[in-house]
Amino acid sequence: MELEPVTDLPEIRPGDDIADLVADRVTLESGDVLTVASTIVSKAEGRTADLEDYPVSGRAKEIARRIEDVAGEEKDPRFAQAVLEESTEVLIDCPFLLTETRFGHICVNAGIDRSNVPDHDVLLLPKKPAESAERIRAGLEARGHEDVAVIVTDTCGRPFRHGQRGVALGWAGMPASRDWRGELDRDGHELGVTVQSVVDELAAAANLVTGEAAGGTPAVAVRGWDFGDLDGSDELFRDVEDDLVRQALREWRFEP
Amino acid sequence: MELEPVTDLPEIRPGDDIADLVADRVTLESGDVLTVASTIVSKAEGRTADLEDYPVSGRAKEIARRIEDVAGEEKDPRFAQAVLEESTEVLIDCPFLLTETRFGHICVNAGIDRSNVPDHDVLLLPKKPAESAERIRAGLEARGHEDVAVIVTDTCGRPFRHGQRGVALGWAGMPASRDWRGELDRDGHELGVTVQSVVDELAAAANLVTGEAAGGTPAVAVRGWDFGDLDGSDELFRDVEDDLVRQALREWRFEP
Repeated sequence: MELEPVTDLPEIRPGDDIADLVADRVTLESGDVLTVASTIVSKAEGRTADLEDYPVSGRAKEIARRIEDVAGEEKDPRFAQAVLEESTEVLIDCPFLLTETRFGHICVNAGIDRSNVPDHDVLLLPKKPAESAERIRAGLEARGHEDVAVIVTDTCGRPFRHGQRGVALGWAGMPASRDWRGELDRDGHELGVTVQSVVDELAAAANLVTGEAAGGTPAVAVRGWDFGDLDGSDELFRDVEDDLVRQALREWRFEP
Repeated sequence: MELEPVTDLPEIRPGDDIADLVADRVTLESGDVLTVASTIVSKAEGRTADLEDYPVSGRAKEIARRIEDVAGEEKDPRFAQAVLEESTEVLIDCPFLLTETRFGHICVNAGIDRSNVPDHDVLLLPKKPAESAERIRAGLEARGHEDVAVIVTDTCGRPFRHGQRGVALGWAGMPASRDWRGELDRDGHELGVTVQSVVDELAAAANLVTGEAAGGTPAVAVRGWDFGDLDGSDELFRDVEDDLVRQALREWRFEP
C-alpha cells in the first residue's frame, strides 16, 4: 500500500471543482482511494461564515458565559451560536462544546474552524460530506478516473487517548467498514474482531502525510490497498441507543 | 509513504525472538517504522492463560451475573476475574466490561483475546507494551537495523463511531505524537489542531494491510514516513482529570 500526497493544489475558492484540480495533478487508477481534507471541500462549497451572521440565542449566551466562568477562557457567544446551529445534540456544554453535527459526526465545536479561513471568521464543515465525496467521485469518473473511492476527512480528538487523528466524515465508492464476522483465525477459531472501520483507518493513514501547516497537502492518493473479499457496512456514526458513553453523558453535568 | 506487510512469519511460540524473525524477512532502513500486532508479542512473551487459573472473587461473580441478567449473554465469571486482574479501574461493568489496563489503555475486556490462542483459553495483552517495543527495537538494532521505530498495536472499538481500528499500545524509537503548536497555516493563522497522535495513525494504517484472518500478517514495515521537524510528546493515555468521558462514566450506572 502506498500513499502519495497530491502536491501543488492552489488555495481553494468557492465554486472550485476539486475533482478537476486533483485530476490534473495525480494519476488515479481503478481501486485507488483519494482522501480530501474537509477544509478544501468546505472552501469549494462556500461554507465560510462571519460571526455577525449568528444572532445570539439565550442558550448560546448561557453556554458562553458558563465556559468563561468555569474554564476562564473567553468564548464568543456568536461562536457558540454557530456551533448550536450546526448541531443536532449537545453532548457536553462545559468546559467545552462537544456536539453531534447534522450529519452524525461527534466532535468539539461542531468542527468549526477558526484557522484556515482567509476572508471570513469561520469555516464550517461540509453540510453533507457523503454527498461531497460522491460529487468528487463522479467528477473523477467523468474525467476518466473510474472506480476511485473518495473519503472526505477531518482530524479530531477522542476520549481515553490524547491527541487528534484523521477520521472520515463522508465517503463514496466504498463501504465504511469491512465485516470479518464468520472469518476464522489461523487456528480455526472465529475472530473476536468483527467490524473494521476502514474509512477511518484510511483517513488516519492519509493524515500522516498531509501535514497541517503552511506546506500541507490536503489530498492524498492511496494505491495498492485492497478491500478484499468481505462484506461491508455503511454505518459509521453510532446512534445513542448503541453508545453507552453518549447515554452516560446525557445524565452528566460538569461540576468544576 | 509505503506499507509492506512482513509475510511468512511462523506461528509464534513462547520465547521466540520477534526481532530475529522479522529481520530475516524484511529489509528495514533508518527512519522506518515496524508495527507488530500485540497478539504475537503476547505469544512470544508467554502471556497465555487458562480460565482455571482465575479463582473467582465475589466481584467477578457479581459482574458476570449482572451481564448475564441484563445482556442475556453467558459470561464466565473466571473470564471476568481475568479482566479484573489485568485492570486498574472498571469504567463500565455492564452490559460489557470496559476497563483501564495496568499500562493505561482503555478497552473492552482488558484486551483479553479468546480467539488466536492454540493451546490455552485466553491470550492476555503484553504486560508492558512500551518495554516490548523497546526490546524489539534493540533486537533489530543488534541485527544491524539501526534507527527503526517499533509500535506494538492492537485493534479496539471506540465511543461515537462504529467499528474497530488499529491503535498503539506501546512504542519505542519515536514520540507518540507530533506537536503542531505555534505552527501557522497558509494564511498565517495559528493552527487549531495541536497534537497529532502519530503512533495511533501508524497503527491504523498498518491495520489496513495486516488482515485479521488466517492469511493475516501481524507485522508491517512503514517506509518513507517522516516525523518532521516538530516537537514530540510521549503522552498517549489520558488521566481521568483530563478526560470528561471518564469522569462521566464514574458517576453513571447502566440501567436497562
